[in-house]
Amino acid sequence: MTQDPTSPGRRLMARLDEFAAFTDDPPKLTRLYLSEAHRRAAARYIAWARAIGLEARIDPAGNVVARYEGAQADAPALMIGSHIDTVRDAGRYDGNLGALAALAVVEELARRGERLDVAIEIVAFGDEEGVRFPKTMTGSRELAGLVQAGALDQRDAEGVVMRDALKAFGGDPDRLPSTRASGVAAFVELHIEQGPVLEAEGLSLGVVSAINGATRFDVAVSGMAGHAGAVPMNLRHDALAAAAEMILGVERRARAEDELVATVGRLDVEPGAVNVIPGLARFSIDIRAPRDERRRRAVADIAAALDAVAVRRGVALKLVQTHEASAYVCDARIVAGLTAAVEAIGQKPRLLPSGAGHDTMIMGQLCPAGMLFVRCKGGVSHNPLESITSEDCEIALAALMRFVRDFRAG
Amino acid sequence: MTQDPTSPGRRLMARLDEFAAFTDDPPKLTRLYLSEAHRRAAARYIAWARAIGLEARIDPAGNVVARYEGAQADAPALMIGSHIDTVRDAGRYDGNLGALAALAVVEELARRGERLDVAIEIVAFGDEEGVRFPKTMTGSRELAGLVQAGALDQRDAEGVVMRDALKAFGGDPDRLPSTRASGVAAFVELHIEQGPVLEAEGLSLGVVSAINGATRFDVAVSGMAGHAGAVPMNLRHDALAAAAEMILGVERRARAEDELVATVGRLDVEPGAVNVIPGLARFSIDIRAPRDERRRRAVADIAAALDAVAVRRGVALKLVQTHEASAYVCDARIVAGLTAAVEAIGQKPRLLPSGAGHDTMIMGQLCPAGMLFVRCKGGVSHNPLESITSEDCEIALAALMRFVRDFRAG
Repeated sequence: MTQDPTSPGRRLMARLDEFAAFTDDPPKLTRLYLSEAHRRAAARYIAWARAIGLEARIDPAGNVVARYEGAQADAPALMIGSHIDTVRDAGRYDGNLGALAALAVVEELARRGERLDVAIEIVAFGDEEGVRFPKTMTGSRELAGLVQAGALDQRDAEGVVMRDALKAFGGDPDRLPSTRASGVAAFVELHIEQGPVLEAEGLSLGVVSAINGATRFDVAVSGMAGHAGAVPMNLRHDALAAAAEMILGVERRARAEDELVATVGRLDVEPGAVNVIPGLARFSIDIRAPRDERRRRAVADIAAALDAVAVRRGVALKLVQTHEASAYVCDARIVAGLTAAVEAIGQKPRLLPSGAGHDTMIMGQLCPAGMLFVRCKGGVSHNPLESITSEDCEIALAALMRFVRDFRAG
Repeated sequence: MTQDPTSPGRRLMARLDEFAAFTDDPPKLTRLYLSEAHRRAAARYIAWARAIGLEARIDPAGNVVARYEGAQADAPALMIGSHIDTVRDAGRYDGNLGALAALAVVEELARRGERLDVAIEIVAFGDEEGVRFPKTMTGSRELAGLVQAGALDQRDAEGVVMRDALKAFGGDPDRLPSTRASGVAAFVELHIEQGPVLEAEGLSLGVVSAINGATRFDVAVSGMAGHAGAVPMNLRHDALAAAAEMILGVERRARAEDELVATVGRLDVEPGAVNVIPGLARFSIDIRAPRDERRRRAVADIAAALDAVAVRRGVALKLVQTHEASAYVCDARIVAGLTAAVEAIGQKPRLLPSGAGHDTMIMGQLCPAGMLFVRCKGGVSHNPLESITSEDCEIALAALMRFVRDFRAG
């Protein structure tokens, strides 16, 4: 695809570069929920929306929302958007791409004076990454009427209470717990893939089939420490060797099933000396699947496999579940609509699950919801090296525009 | 064996308890080379030796040495002893048992007025554990004429130069580099096993066949970090999963051969987060065997196994050798003599290699040398929980006494 330098995709890429300047920690991009950088980014987003005639505002949770009316007043809305908060030392595309793409879609409609059967509501969520406060996705939870008890009383690392930060930002902590959006017919989010699948298959776009559910464990394996020279192999209860066998068991189970992933990301060994047989190994397991029943089967199989290793090796095993989140299976009509849009612009449709969590899984509790993924370089995200091509950006914007134009409520 | 409360074994146990009070860090037992606690312990040892008429002294390296003459003046000497320095927060038997047992043997001979064909020289080495200065076994190296270049210029963690500490202690840094003991016909060391073999087999004593040689590696496995949810199993290059397979390969090779041991004691994972596929795993390998050629074959096999895992998994492997020490095969005559002594006192002889290093392996460069091991509880050493029974102490002392009485030089 040859690109016009003034094309919507090029303009969006330039705007993403500009937007990356809103940071609390220059030259790194760090934009935490309700921070000064978030405030300035939100103000710029509002200014852009107002420049095309939209009435944009900060909502009670600190989201930026704006509405582009349809052909008829009070039409049901298709909501599109993503988040504008970031992790520390972030890339410039995770979240921001989808938030600014939503704006670009409406700009294009406004420029042409196009009014659709539905209104388009755009949203820039403020709290997807969960870096500043423990409870996360407050923005989409507010829209879905699912704000968690105690959310307003959370403190950040400096002791700032979320309620105060939200008030200073221009949100409305008093209204927050009782809000729920109405008139939203569907929600769609464009986001970078954060994985290598599209790149590996030479595809620009993917349609998300489901957002994986996840179960996490902390595992402790207790064996017997001992002198690395003086304890013969047959008298050992090496906690690390046992953990190694367990790690391979986790991997084996995940490999045996399509779209299932399981990861041991953290491992600590005690005492951790070159000449001492490990007495204790602690590690994490993260198991994800696009269907809850498949994840639960995998969890049970992995627990049984670990137990078998522990029994055989004479080590003690302790498994503590630290996290559990259900999968969100994307709405079938949205998936079909996104697939059709991708095909309509000449791209090969590829369904894939999302391994990462997204606001879409919360919005799915409010209305039919779905996601479109765009290829990112090396699958890298949460890193300044995050990268997409302007060609892919152009294609993603075209697919999103096509989906919006073809969308019919109800 | 019923024990007389005034038996030599009981007396030795009591003396070991008393000796444990010489510490730089009460109530923990920490007695580093040339420290104040070492000075006071050495003074007590000298006092005990003088009380039975021996001429005891601090030698140039800070060892305590004393000679009990044989039936004829200038007879060749059988040297017995062990070290009186400790690790930090040590047990009271590692080293001290052998040093004080040597004294007990001579006391018994002196009490009875027994003079042997050989003189008995007793030694309390000061620097076996290598905690204070990087270069270790300076005491036995001095006797063997093998003091390392630069040893005197080493600094401890506080910046104290060994030369100055040695002078203050009463050693002789000027003479140290050029000393070598003469007239020593053999060296024998009694020591706790530091492993669980004797306990597992219900034996009080073991005769050391060899002190294991050791090779150590630092291993770095570089894969590709990635999102634990977003990277499918078939696109991963998980550094920890690769390391786990390598660890099991190390274990498998060691298990395949009697008396070979191999240990992965240290493992670090980066970035080390529950939701990130490990991009880097670093670990140590420690490989020991009682024969150098067996250790070298094992090292080659393990390196090849690691390489095969790395190639298959598409991860980079870096192996850096950090340590290599040759095995010391104990002198056949000494081994036979110790075996005969163990049998003579009604114990079952058991030959076993020593996984830990000892002064004996240095002394073996000077003269025929060997070791006698005594069972310790749970194989635990380098720990306040280090424990031996007074029954075993009695038996060990009897075996050592028997060996000494039966020993013939030349």
